[in-house]
Amino acid sequence: MSDILDLSIGEAGRQVRQGRLSFPELAGACLDRERLTRRLNAFSEIYERQAVELAEAYQTLLRNGYDLGPLHGIPLALKANIDIQGHEMHAGSRILQGNMAGRDAVVSLRLKQAGALILGTTTMHEFAWGGTTDNPHYGACHNAWDAARIPAGSSGGSGVAAAVRSAFATLGTDTGGSIRLPASMNGVTGLRPGVGRISTEGIFPLAWSMDTVGPLARSSEECALVYTALSGETPLSLDDAPYPLRIGVIEDYSDQGLQPDVARAWQQTLALFGEMGATIAPVRVDGLENAVDAQVIVDAAEPSAVHGHWLQSRPEEYGEDVRMLLQAGLGFSAVEYLQAQRYRTWLRQQLERLFRQVDVILTPTLPFTAPLSGQAQVVIDGQPESVLTGNMRFTCLPSLTAMPALSLPAGFDAQNLPIGMQLIGPDGGEQMLLKVAHHFQQRTDFHLRRPPCINDSLSP
Amino acid sequence: MSDILDLSIGEAGRQVRQGRLSFPELAGACLDRERLTRRLNAFSEIYERQAVELAEAYQTLLRNGYDLGPLHGIPLALKANIDIQGHEMHAGSRILQGNMAGRDAVVSLRLKQAGALILGTTTMHEFAWGGTTDNPHYGACHNAWDAARIPAGSSGGSGVAAAVRSAFATLGTDTGGSIRLPASMNGVTGLRPGVGRISTEGIFPLAWSMDTVGPLARSSEECALVYTALSGETPLSLDDAPYPLRIGVIEDYSDQGLQPDVARAWQQTLALFGEMGATIAPVRVDGLENAVDAQVIVDAAEPSAVHGHWLQSRPEEYGEDVRMLLQAGLGFSAVEYLQAQRYRTWLRQQLERLFRQVDVILTPTLPFTAPLSGQAQVVIDGQPESVLTGNMRFTCLPSLTAMPALSLPAGFDAQNLPIGMQLIGPDGGEQMLLKVAHHFQQRTDFHLRRPPCINDSLSP
Repeated sequence: MSDILDLSIGEAGRQVRQGRLSFPELAGACLDRERLTRRLNAFSEIYERQAVELAEAYQTLLRNGYDLGPLHGIPLALKANIDIQGHEMHAGSRILQGNMAGRDAVVSLRLKQAGALILGTTTMHEFAWGGTTDNPHYGACHNAWDAARIPAGSSGGSGVAAAVRSAFATLGTDTGGSIRLPASMNGVTGLRPGVGRISTEGIFPLAWSMDTVGPLARSSEECALVYTALSGETPLSLDDAPYPLRIGVIEDYSDQGLQPDVARAWQQTLALFGEMGATIAPVRVDGLENAVDAQVIVDAAEPSAVHGHWLQSRPEEYGEDVRMLLQAGLGFSAVEYLQAQRYRTWLRQQLERLFRQVDVILTPTLPFTAPLSGQAQVVIDGQPESVLTGNMRFTCLPSLTAMPALSLPAGFDAQNLPIGMQLIGPDGGEQMLLKVAHHFQQRTDFHLRRPPCINDSLSP
Repeated sequence: MSDILDLSIGEAGRQVRQGRLSFPELAGACLDRERLTRRLNAFSEIYERQAVELAEAYQTLLRNGYDLGPLHGIPLALKANIDIQGHEMHAGSRILQGNMAGRDAVVSLRLKQAGALILGTTTMHEFAWGGTTDNPHYGACHNAWDAARIPAGSSGGSGVAAAVRSAFATLGTDTGGSIRLPASMNGVTGLRPGVGRISTEGIFPLAWSMDTVGPLARSSEECALVYTALSGETPLSLDDAPYPLRIGVIEDYSDQGLQPDVARAWQQTLALFGEMGATIAPVRVDGLENAVDAQVIVDAAEPSAVHGHWLQSRPEEYGEDVRMLLQAGLGFSAVEYLQAQRYRTWLRQQLERLFRQVDVILTPTLPFTAPLSGQAQVVIDGQPESVLTGNMRFTCLPSLTAMPALSLPAGFDAQNLPIGMQLIGPDGGEQMLLKVAHHFQQRTDFHLRRPPCINDSLSP
């Protein structure tokens, strides 16, 4: 039925401009899709009446020559920790329940100025502090490919909404992996811009020295449209080949301890990039064994500083997991925090040197595919690994170094769960990452496959 | 009656946000005002049906929290040489009659993204090449204060529409004075940004090395809102005092050969700035006797290069004055052009040095107030001066040096015709000029007086 949602943002926009489709139809298709997939709990709030009014208004603007560009009239959804004027911004928490945003976050305003239609907000892990999007206050969000599994987090709803296309693209926030993890586990493309690249003003902070905000969407091309609106940068032509392309692979790291299907996808991805003309170069990074620990310290101490007051005065209003993490964050010493920051600088210097030899670094996004809800450990090669540290294993590298990274769909496991690969770029490399991913996506269809729940819904 | 149009842009916006006024009412008031003042011929085209639709759409957006800022829903008008998607861009010419713009000029798009409502286009001197806005193809535009007089040009319609407030603000283009002259003669504030500050992409060129685009409005505060939307700069707070302020006055220049009422306003302006705490410093600029000649050369050769082909193939389609000017432009030698450009560099270097000693330079905008239509000369102290060179006497300095300048209302002559003063600033000094003008306007009411044609129209 709802073929409209198979159109890319660019195609949908062209059809509207040719009069073969309208913004009200586009918004209606997303609202219908949201209803069909409601049990996944991707949306936190849906501005349905507003969406109908806005779609009409955007149609009127376009008819009168007010063409604000490729996002004009395109339904998007934003993570629930982003201020949208006149709407609740609860960041998945009970503490902020009823907190109405008096003004827009910078990203919300930029999307509005680009003509986007904000359909609503997406579910998230409480205060963005966790990777399962199992929210004690607003319910659990479920993986788009298998509702028994986690959608990852903290931007779980953004990943699921982008996967089922109840929105054409979504915004997530990423501190230690919160865009890339749900992108990987739900089979969509997610860009974590470098720290500071896009203003986080009006977004509830997690760990300010690593916090970023960026798009999740089906394709790199779609992410690029959103990224351009957010950054104000002149867009690169994605169609220009990114070659010669030198891809760095970190020795004794990127191919270690992977689930067999992930390991297979890793090898196939390398082979495909090789066929496409990229040079694969082994590179070394020292001290990676300390990366997850460093991230844990920074990603614990900074949030606990943010939450200090509430943690004292309203501890019972936090979910248990988040309260424990925040309380744990109080236990780190200043010296531990400073050592972690020194480690970050050293790691960043290593990567800066590497980026003189290679254009991007490739890793898997995660060692495994989506675990079952409630599953705390994944066993790989007989070795148990906690989901929490497994989540950080590869995503910590851009987080610690404040560099941009992108997760792109690169395969499926035997259970038809998506597998993601992570491209890491140097400072300012966001567009280059989008371009490399676009070229991969022109040769592959992993990003085009539809989660079974959509096909089921659409079957007669 | 139409008190709405006495509201500043800021006040009108606040009233809409408080629910005491609506965008359809605002647009309706401007459309009514345009009808009442139609004999002045300020508008080239009015998008009436569109204005009604857009006003409703903007009201819908605002109601749903899409608040695009202070220009949201504010009716503006653009000079007829600026591309507005889907509308005719004829630049006041017969040659471009029926030329439909396929896309927006950068300034049009930026205003749309800021939520502005473009009411239509304003009349102009053919191809912007002249100072009377007496257009052989579309009729003469008339001064807002006395319809028997010229509104100046080339952005005459923009000056008149801003003066009678058939639009809250307008865009003009300024090469040799085409924003500042109509601002001065119609009693409004007009900002010529420095060359290159605002993109002129999508605007029909006159002389590319001096072309700029900027706002005309009642107050500096209103010009600042438009300038911010166009430039994307973070706005200065206009309310912070610009003091200490050092105002440079060019010896043997700024006070020479002025009509007596202009001379009186000049002295009063200096005195007022002095009272407000500014230091008035005499400064010297060498070689000013060559400035008008240099401007004539550049402002003739570059347009003639642009028009070369049509001048050959379709000369009969130009108005006589413009054809003659363009043909005259063909007669300059390359050496003359290059010498003029060398002179510009030397003049600019002098001004750059001056701007280490003073913050702004003050001159009258014009030696005289609005001449009668058809009047070719103005006699001052028994000396005849052509309107054409008189127009350039003071405005040429920023044009030649590519620096920003602003004309602000600073008095009236015995016939109740407005007098303007010109503030010139260094590169990047646009916001400072707006701030200095704002402080002047907080102490004066010249910019608030209404042209008699409005009062007449409103009398029972």
